[in-house]
Amino acid sequence: MSLTDLSGRVALGIDVGGTNTKFGVVNHRGEVLEKGRIKTDDYAEVEDFVDALYENIRPLIEKFGTKASFDGVGIGIPNGNYYTGTVEQAPNLPWKGIIPFADLITAKFALPCSITNDANAAALGEMLFGAARGMKDFIMITLGTGVGSGIVANGSLIYGHDGFAGELGHTIVKPGGRKHWSTGSEGSLEAYASATGIAITAKKMRAEFPSSMLNQYPEDAINSKTVYECASKGDPIAIEVFRYTGQKLGEALANFVMFSSPEAILLFGGVIKAGDFILKPAKLHMERNLLPIFRDKVKLVFSELDEADAAILGASALVWEQKSK
Amino acid sequence: MSLTDLSGRVALGIDVGGTNTKFGVVNHRGEVLEKGRIKTDDYAEVEDFVDALYENIRPLIEKFGTKASFDGVGIGIPNGNYYTGTVEQAPNLPWKGIIPFADLITAKFALPCSITNDANAAALGEMLFGAARGMKDFIMITLGTGVGSGIVANGSLIYGHDGFAGELGHTIVKPGGRKHWSTGSEGSLEAYASATGIAITAKKMRAEFPSSMLNQYPEDAINSKTVYECASKGDPIAIEVFRYTGQKLGEALANFVMFSSPEAILLFGGVIKAGDFILKPAKLHMERNLLPIFRDKVKLVFSELDEADAAILGASALVWEQKSK
Repeated sequence: MSLTDLSGRVALGIDVGGTNTKFGVVNHRGEVLEKGRIKTDDYAEVEDFVDALYENIRPLIEKFGTKASFDGVGIGIPNGNYYTGTVEQAPNLPWKGIIPFADLITAKFALPCSITNDANAAALGEMLFGAARGMKDFIMITLGTGVGSGIVANGSLIYGHDGFAGELGHTIVKPGGRKHWSTGSEGSLEAYASATGIAITAKKMRAEFPSSMLNQYPEDAINSKTVYECASKGDPIAIEVFRYTGQKLGEALANFVMFSSPEAILLFGGVIKAGDFILKPAKLHMERNLLPIFRDKVKLVFSELDEADAAILGASALVWEQKSK
Repeated sequence: MSLTDLSGRVALGIDVGGTNTKFGVVNHRGEVLEKGRIKTDDYAEVEDFVDALYENIRPLIEKFGTKASFDGVGIGIPNGNYYTGTVEQAPNLPWKGIIPFADLITAKFALPCSITNDANAAALGEMLFGAARGMKDFIMITLGTGVGSGIVANGSLIYGHDGFAGELGHTIVKPGGRKHWSTGSEGSLEAYASATGIAITAKKMRAEFPSSMLNQYPEDAINSKTVYECASKGDPIAIEVFRYTGQKLGEALANFVMFSSPEAILLFGGVIKAGDFILKPAKLHMERNLLPIFRDKVKLVFSELDEADAAILGASALVWEQKSK
């Protein structure tokens, strides 16, 4: 860390997840200068959480001498609404109802605060510091426990009229298909392409094929990591689990491409560790479902950001993006 | 027409269709002051078409005294690319390959020219002069012989990185479903919700139900107009044709809403003459397929523009939109 970095402008990036909250001090070059974390689910009340966050971040702020170096706080948080600064009915957070999250942060930190959902923050991070640098049109898909997305068109995030745009994980890829464990919808992308969805597919397929290596694990050990282990060892059923997942993902991606014609689709999150097992069928089925004018044009790539820092970078990008408008 | 209108700034709006080309002189208030048309398919060569267009429009320009009153030419044309000014591989136009359409027009008319596809032009027309006035986020769906779309987010049309965004008619609503007569894709929205798709549905259903009123027409008279006649007289099969069409449309609309979270979806084109026969099931199935946070928020409305003028207005809006950037 150079003196130049310390004397320059910085932003606070905070990534609030259901279990952990990560935070960091980020400079204009996208370097995470300081970082830390607290447990999200230790705090039943959001006010206690914000207090704890402040107590943990204060030493970092003091290290930089003055709050005046900070341009603001950017936060990625499930169901975070950019327009209203509220978090609304987030199923994976301990706090229910409509929470004025940005206001709570500003009141405590005395800094301007912008929030958005975690996938939008990730998209911003990629645009400013990652694989989407210089792109004006791209789609970020996060494949984790759930499937999230952030859509950039004409160089700006699409928030929609109410701040809730980009719920691509909940678009239907197979009408009347697999029922979603939480929303109840049938055949959504998330029901197939999330880590949760992959585990469901794997459990079904191993039951049909007793010879599959997947049957060597207890039920609760079946997840995208163990499926990957079996696929890497050549188990055809594990490979088929990812191929099927990739197909559903690719079919969905084709529809997204015909919507906003992005230069690239960026994939991010734990599921992409499956690599070509998912990427190749996803690419194949995306191309097959596209009109000829869209074919062989869209880059389908993995995020370049270090996963540990990406969420913090993305959240801090919200501060820079805000200021550049 | 007042003297004020004549002395003000005007734009030339041109709507090029497969059969007819309509043109008009439009003022800032969205009034079509003069208009005319020529046959598109009379001209095997695009140069001859542009010459004929100029000869037909020249009297209108002279009526306004000087070309200096004209801010430019806006053109809605199938497969028109906003970025390149070219028309690429348009299946319904007589001219094949990649045509430098905007350049040809500028060379002949000595006026700046912007082009886009017809559905994008319609969306601009609605934003400047129609049902989407004041909206920053909406989707326009044109339901005619085919299904087109124009998407506005953050107050701007989404063109995508290559100018081809918004091909929502070709998104897949039913994987493995009805094969498209031209693209060969299976289960696209256009295969069900276009006038062509409705005729196919009607022919299938009347074959299954000999008692349907639809069987009183010869095969080539089955189209959305005759289906509407039968539905209006209470024929349950004709009503079911529209209900099924509306269901497929509604399922697709739900996916679009979760993409860009628009304030409204505007429907336009010949098919909407079916009114509530399509609108009610479309609304029902859109809402059913939405996540709760999107429900009962999106207006699903018909275009307010006079159909005869809408295409010209939309094309001219391209000139105004361009200038306001």
